[in-house]
Amino acid sequence: MRNSSRGAVDPFIVMDVMEAARAAEEAGRHIIHMEVGQPSSPAPEHARRVLSEAMMTDPLGYTVALGLPALRNRIARLYGDWYDVDLDPARVVVTPGSSGGFILAFSALFDAGERVALGMPGYPSYRQILKALDLVPVEVPASPDNGYQLVPEDLKGVDYQGLMMASPANPTGTMLGRDQLGALIETCQAQGAAFLSDEIYHGIEYDKRAVTALELSDEVCVINSFSKYFSMTGWRVGWLVVPEAQVRQVERLAQNLFICPPHAAQVAALAALDADDELQGNLAVYAKNRELMLDGLPKAGFDRIAPPDGAFYVYADVSHLTDDSRAFAAEILDKAGVAVTPGLDFDPLRGHGTLRFSYARSSADIEEGLARLRTFMALRG
Amino acid sequence: MRNSSRGAVDPFIVMDVMEAARAAEEAGRHIIHMEVGQPSSPAPEHARRVLSEAMMTDPLGYTVALGLPALRNRIARLYGDWYDVDLDPARVVVTPGSSGGFILAFSALFDAGERVALGMPGYPSYRQILKALDLVPVEVPASPDNGYQLVPEDLKGVDYQGLMMASPANPTGTMLGRDQLGALIETCQAQGAAFLSDEIYHGIEYDKRAVTALELSDEVCVINSFSKYFSMTGWRVGWLVVPEAQVRQVERLAQNLFICPPHAAQVAALAALDADDELQGNLAVYAKNRELMLDGLPKAGFDRIAPPDGAFYVYADVSHLTDDSRAFAAEILDKAGVAVTPGLDFDPLRGHGTLRFSYARSSADIEEGLARLRTFMALRG
Repeated sequence: MRNSSRGAVDPFIVMDVMEAARAAEEAGRHIIHMEVGQPSSPAPEHARRVLSEAMMTDPLGYTVALGLPALRNRIARLYGDWYDVDLDPARVVVTPGSSGGFILAFSALFDAGERVALGMPGYPSYRQILKALDLVPVEVPASPDNGYQLVPEDLKGVDYQGLMMASPANPTGTMLGRDQLGALIETCQAQGAAFLSDEIYHGIEYDKRAVTALELSDEVCVINSFSKYFSMTGWRVGWLVVPEAQVRQVERLAQNLFICPPHAAQVAALAALDADDELQGNLAVYAKNRELMLDGLPKAGFDRIAPPDGAFYVYADVSHLTDDSRAFAAEILDKAGVAVTPGLDFDPLRGHGTLRFSYARSSADIEEGLARLRTFMALRG
Repeated sequence: MRNSSRGAVDPFIVMDVMEAARAAEEAGRHIIHMEVGQPSSPAPEHARRVLSEAMMTDPLGYTVALGLPALRNRIARLYGDWYDVDLDPARVVVTPGSSGGFILAFSALFDAGERVALGMPGYPSYRQILKALDLVPVEVPASPDNGYQLVPEDLKGVDYQGLMMASPANPTGTMLGRDQLGALIETCQAQGAAFLSDEIYHGIEYDKRAVTALELSDEVCVINSFSKYFSMTGWRVGWLVVPEAQVRQVERLAQNLFICPPHAAQVAALAALDADDELQGNLAVYAKNRELMLDGLPKAGFDRIAPPDGAFYVYADVSHLTDDSRAFAAEILDKAGVAVTPGLDFDPLRGHGTLRFSYARSSADIEEGLARLRTFMALRG
């Protein structure tokens, strides 16, 4: 049987960690999970109740490709509530998760062989989806001095037809301020390149507010999702906001590539938008966990960390402790019983010297994990 | 803003029909829907009940990319029950609908510029998904004398790296017998091309049983879905069966392109596999509708039809009545109040002379629709 070369994407290294953690648990060990990038909370109770009722009265067949009109309207309203941006619901496209949003945006924007610039470190699937679509990921190293976010100077001399940024970012949690984001959009648009803003962690922010690219320009493509703030990872529902001139192209692609986003997930998502009390409760847990991490990680010896403005990650430079983050993560799992993610998935170049710690789980787990890390590091000397 | 050329896929002509039908209904008219390709029944009651319960106890976060192991096992068992095929669950990949299956299979198998042969008429999204992935759809006209299914002679002189077949087919409902399917697989494999079998309408068959390509070869890629027989269109859950040598490639692509299929839909799908009583009830309705169609369509004047072995479609040659199926469908909607699909979506070459009638709705609707068609045609003369 034939295998394509475009399909030969890299494996996730974190999968090895997760498999090792699973095997350890099967063998009877207790593992603290700081490797996973998802909330442990379910979809909001209100969302689940509304869906349970809808399942009894609605066959939940195909929706139109762009998503339930009520959901598109309600998402547009969110931009008023959160950012004071007046957004035309016609520009909102409901997608099968942010993954579906990436596929749609990339195929609507770029032809085979075109180049999309990404900051390193970054979400590994960006480059794998680009490769699978015969596009060229151009990975540009971002400096720890800039919170691992690209600045316009980093893009000098880089040939690209698109630029993808994320704020708050994965794996770092760092955010772009309004001026920084604006400067990047300007630089990108001056090149005639498309600007894509991954805003999947919006809503999970602490000391300052996340800025949407839509506050600065209508000619950008915003990717978002119900997976993180709305706590609906497994439901596979997200959204795109595209410029008006792109709506028809994205609609036709969505009709053919996906038919529609999952109907049940759309019903639940619409209700989740009115579950702010419960969601703010989840956020309070992340905020507490973040305080625990900012206190506990340096005490354990992980003190070279990017400012975690949002999301639920801390990205630590451990290059003074190891030059093999994969082996180091395996050692931490083995000796401390804590699963963490080696930086190699996010930064093939420098990730051998970094780790990502997630604090999406319960505060009790985070406390226990930090205590274990401290003991481990003390014994390691 | 830039638009890619790969993304400039054709619009669905049926969408115009659906929009016109919606507008007519909004204006107070009663329309019979013979244009839609989906069951009007919901997911099985058992599936909805199981999901309602699961939502209370399970956060329904990400599953592994290949799908819930219990679901993969249960799907493998289906091949024993339905076809007496012993299938390794490791070869079963749960996908976000058959749409996700096509995207995964095409990107795992083919590199940009490669050619995939398709029979005309056929499901329009095949060619649009191929285009969006920078692959080349090679549309080969199938003869009405062969039930609009390709035969090996049709492929003589055709350059292709993959061949996609469907049985029962959309828009015709015709099926390939074991020998016909075997001959196509052999012809394809002798070329070193990949054989893909779209089996989404399996289970919806009448006088004879549908044959899976897996009865004939392990070196094929089978696409299926819970949308049709299992009555779960809007849930976006389907599956692929791939050769063993392809599993890792497909897994890595699925991790990056989709993360996982919708978790809630997977839970419901697993339960739907044990809801055969209700599903056989749905099938009895289709069987009755099919009898009504086979009696009523010829009486109305639509007597040049392909043998509708399965699915819930009748494909009629109306070239003696019109050379503009789009205008004819508009006339039928306007004068008879019946929405039907012009053949152009399925066959750009000859579809100006064909119509697709769907009988997926209630028998009362089908009876009323047939009566209207008969009156309309009598008046048309």
